[in-house]
Amino acid sequence: MAKNITPRSNDYSQWYLDIIKEAQLAEHSPVRGCMVIKPTGYALWENMRDVLDKMFKDTGHQNAYFPLFIPKSFLSKEAQHVEGFAKECAVITHSRLINSENGVDVDPDSKLEEELIVRPTSETIIWDTYRNWVQSHRDLPILINQWANVVRWEMRTRLFLRTMEFLWQEGHTAHATEEEAIAETKQMLEVYRTFAEDYMAMPVITGVKTESERFAGALETYCIEALMQDGKALQAGTSHFLGQNFAKAFDVKFQDKDNTLKYVWATSWGVSTRLIGGLIMTHSDDDGLVLPPKIAPTQVVIVPIWKTDEEQQAVTNYAHDLVDELKKAGIRVKFDGRDQYKPGWKFAQYEVEGVPVRIAVGPRDVQNGKVEIARRDTKTKQIAERASVLEIIHELLTDIQYQLFQTAKSRMENMTSVATSYDEFKRILDEKGGFIYAHWDGTAETEARIKEETKATIRCIPLNQTPEEGTCIYSGNPSKGKVLFARAY
Amino acid sequence: MAKNITPRSNDYSQWYLDIIKEAQLAEHSPVRGCMVIKPTGYALWENMRDVLDKMFKDTGHQNAYFPLFIPKSFLSKEAQHVEGFAKECAVITHSRLINSENGVDVDPDSKLEEELIVRPTSETIIWDTYRNWVQSHRDLPILINQWANVVRWEMRTRLFLRTMEFLWQEGHTAHATEEEAIAETKQMLEVYRTFAEDYMAMPVITGVKTESERFAGALETYCIEALMQDGKALQAGTSHFLGQNFAKAFDVKFQDKDNTLKYVWATSWGVSTRLIGGLIMTHSDDDGLVLPPKIAPTQVVIVPIWKTDEEQQAVTNYAHDLVDELKKAGIRVKFDGRDQYKPGWKFAQYEVEGVPVRIAVGPRDVQNGKVEIARRDTKTKQIAERASVLEIIHELLTDIQYQLFQTAKSRMENMTSVATSYDEFKRILDEKGGFIYAHWDGTAETEARIKEETKATIRCIPLNQTPEEGTCIYSGNPSKGKVLFARAY
Repeated sequence: MAKNITPRSNDYSQWYLDIIKEAQLAEHSPVRGCMVIKPTGYALWENMRDVLDKMFKDTGHQNAYFPLFIPKSFLSKEAQHVEGFAKECAVITHSRLINSENGVDVDPDSKLEEELIVRPTSETIIWDTYRNWVQSHRDLPILINQWANVVRWEMRTRLFLRTMEFLWQEGHTAHATEEEAIAETKQMLEVYRTFAEDYMAMPVITGVKTESERFAGALETYCIEALMQDGKALQAGTSHFLGQNFAKAFDVKFQDKDNTLKYVWATSWGVSTRLIGGLIMTHSDDDGLVLPPKIAPTQVVIVPIWKTDEEQQAVTNYAHDLVDELKKAGIRVKFDGRDQYKPGWKFAQYEVEGVPVRIAVGPRDVQNGKVEIARRDTKTKQIAERASVLEIIHELLTDIQYQLFQTAKSRMENMTSVATSYDEFKRILDEKGGFIYAHWDGTAETEARIKEETKATIRCIPLNQTPEEGTCIYSGNPSKGKVLFARAY
Repeated sequence: MAKNITPRSNDYSQWYLDIIKEAQLAEHSPVRGCMVIKPTGYALWENMRDVLDKMFKDTGHQNAYFPLFIPKSFLSKEAQHVEGFAKECAVITHSRLINSENGVDVDPDSKLEEELIVRPTSETIIWDTYRNWVQSHRDLPILINQWANVVRWEMRTRLFLRTMEFLWQEGHTAHATEEEAIAETKQMLEVYRTFAEDYMAMPVITGVKTESERFAGALETYCIEALMQDGKALQAGTSHFLGQNFAKAFDVKFQDKDNTLKYVWATSWGVSTRLIGGLIMTHSDDDGLVLPPKIAPTQVVIVPIWKTDEEQQAVTNYAHDLVDELKKAGIRVKFDGRDQYKPGWKFAQYEVEGVPVRIAVGPRDVQNGKVEIARRDTKTKQIAERASVLEIIHELLTDIQYQLFQTAKSRMENMTSVATSYDEFKRILDEKGGFIYAHWDGTAETEARIKEETKATIRCIPLNQTPEEGTCIYSGNPSKGKVLFARAY
């Protein structure tokens, strides 16, 4: 157990914050609720972004950039949207500062005619723009994604999971038909599922949100839900079928092949730096961060060990040769030859930072043509022939990626229960936590009461659920199938 | 000459806007002064960003992310900085909206205790953070870059060149010694020069700014200055040596090897989406955008020509094979097989969009094993053997990149004059424009008067200038060397 990291069993929330601090991922900023993403954390986000960006482009999307600011009046154009979103946000009212005795003050003469809102999400400004881009069916579909920062004035923040400003991508697509927009919504959900499972090694349940949990302005919100080690769920990504709501609010019509004017169909979908919080809470342990090789900024670190200058020269040459070989094979490898830190300190630091594989090279290894290879997840070590290192590393990275997913998946399965009564439901929640499948009568009232009484919410109506007649655990009324409950972040 | 594009000779400003519109790079947004960067424009920015990002990483920098908002009080901590910067900016005063008869209104109860400023640049928030990162000389240097959006409340905006919100990168480094910080400042200037000349094919003059034109808070501002086709200069990138100003303002000290506490030395450096404006005005012509191959999102477009279905099949197969070959060779190639547009329309569109090389493939080409290759810059065409296409494309892309730079460099040289009297200076400015070397007495007063009387500013004191005794063209007082004047964007 690493010093400076609180064990999960003592205080899970503190463990989470300790991991972020010790792995140097992020820290609180002097601006309440905003975070500073440190180089190690940002490198992780860059890798995640690059993989997602390629997946978006491979499915036909292009990136664009829309303004940070939204005129206040835009927010009230889509009635449901403003209900759900517009309330807690950063409002710009002035455009100038003036010198004062205290330093600077806001110039009262610079008051704006119409206030601007820092985007909490960009549907309104984008659909106002799409109006000019769409005349004919030939202009559709529009398949656009934006990488951006957004701001939501959250009162209770937690690094990565919920911050006032966060980084995300938001896809905004426009289609000629309802079917095509729904297909897009589902396609992007599948992109998110693939990314979460195949790259982050984080198993997820795919489903649709209930009406109460739906995105403000959407007809249907699809989501991926992950389960953290403490048994709480995390909404990790959402894909919204927006119907014609925004097209109607912003008057976006097109002339169809049949020469009639029709409103455009819309989707939007997003994932954010919140994913980093999910990643931490899926794999990490009491010794620090554990990263899946596919998105780890550094996959292999090489730490040299020496006493004399002569030894330093020998191990450095030996290691550089290995670095070259691994780099050529496309492995993200780092050599840490700094002499102000001891090998033991480096071992501990890379363990905390979650580097999947560590190679140590000492003078005897050089003589014998060997290296020591240690894996972060299981902490097992092996002595390997120099000639076999590349092959072993390839196998290890593949195996670590696979095992992290399997471990997380088994944990999720073990922490998934079925409750047949409300008492059982509450007992499971308190004793075990995790996902709970239970019958629900389909009403917002029951959903709200369960939430009020237990803090558990319906995470989703799972997509792969087979319809099944039953009785609501709360009201005793008829149910058409089990839904997925959990307490959530 | 393309329709919809005003010739440069008629109205240069309108030509610039027409290019941006017809090449679909960007457009004005409903938020005054902010732009929407459209997919073609954003793809160009992504390519420029990726090249720069690699150059930053190759010189040892890491990316990080700092908050969008800056507490108002931070801006007044560095006296010169607030003088130069803090005045025109977006001020956040409230954090909530409430429903009203008109839609939504600002909730007066949500007034912030301290207003927040949307970052116009991040020195203050970053140096406030660095205070906690630096204790010992072992913590230095800090070599960090940030890709971000920033906001400056500009009254007169022009797409890409000057917008209220723009995208940029800002490097912020911290060093133990003055020498190291100055070396970093110069290194990053050289990175910018290399990027401008070797990738954008845009020749630049490197130099230092006069005190009046220096960045607010800097001891020395280094810059690259380019010359546009209309004879006006464009500041294309700046690298600032900040001395210990920000370290003192934010109390950032370190314990040096000699055990004494010292203030840290700083640099900052940035380029922005303004570069896209410079790119347009360096190479484009009356037919549209012209892009250097190294940063063109699409380097080669293949347009098929057919009448019958059978012909369509044949040319498509023939083209796909070529696409595969070029892609494998690392060339960014696009096949446009859309049948709702005619080949002539596509030719015109890719000409406007500035794709460096166009390949046309018709049924006869398939039979004869040929293709037609056209280059955008010179508009020359050639018929080539199918087997030689890859080799020809490689040569063409290299040659276009080279010729664009040579053409721009010759133009810059032809538009660079030496003025030995103020009358000559004014005459050159009005008749020819361009860069003018002239003796200056080194005073801010003379500089200001020349600016007031002629609108020409000192772009820089060029780095490669040899010291030379002379007489100021304005005051007649002694001068130690010629400086570079121009009217500028």
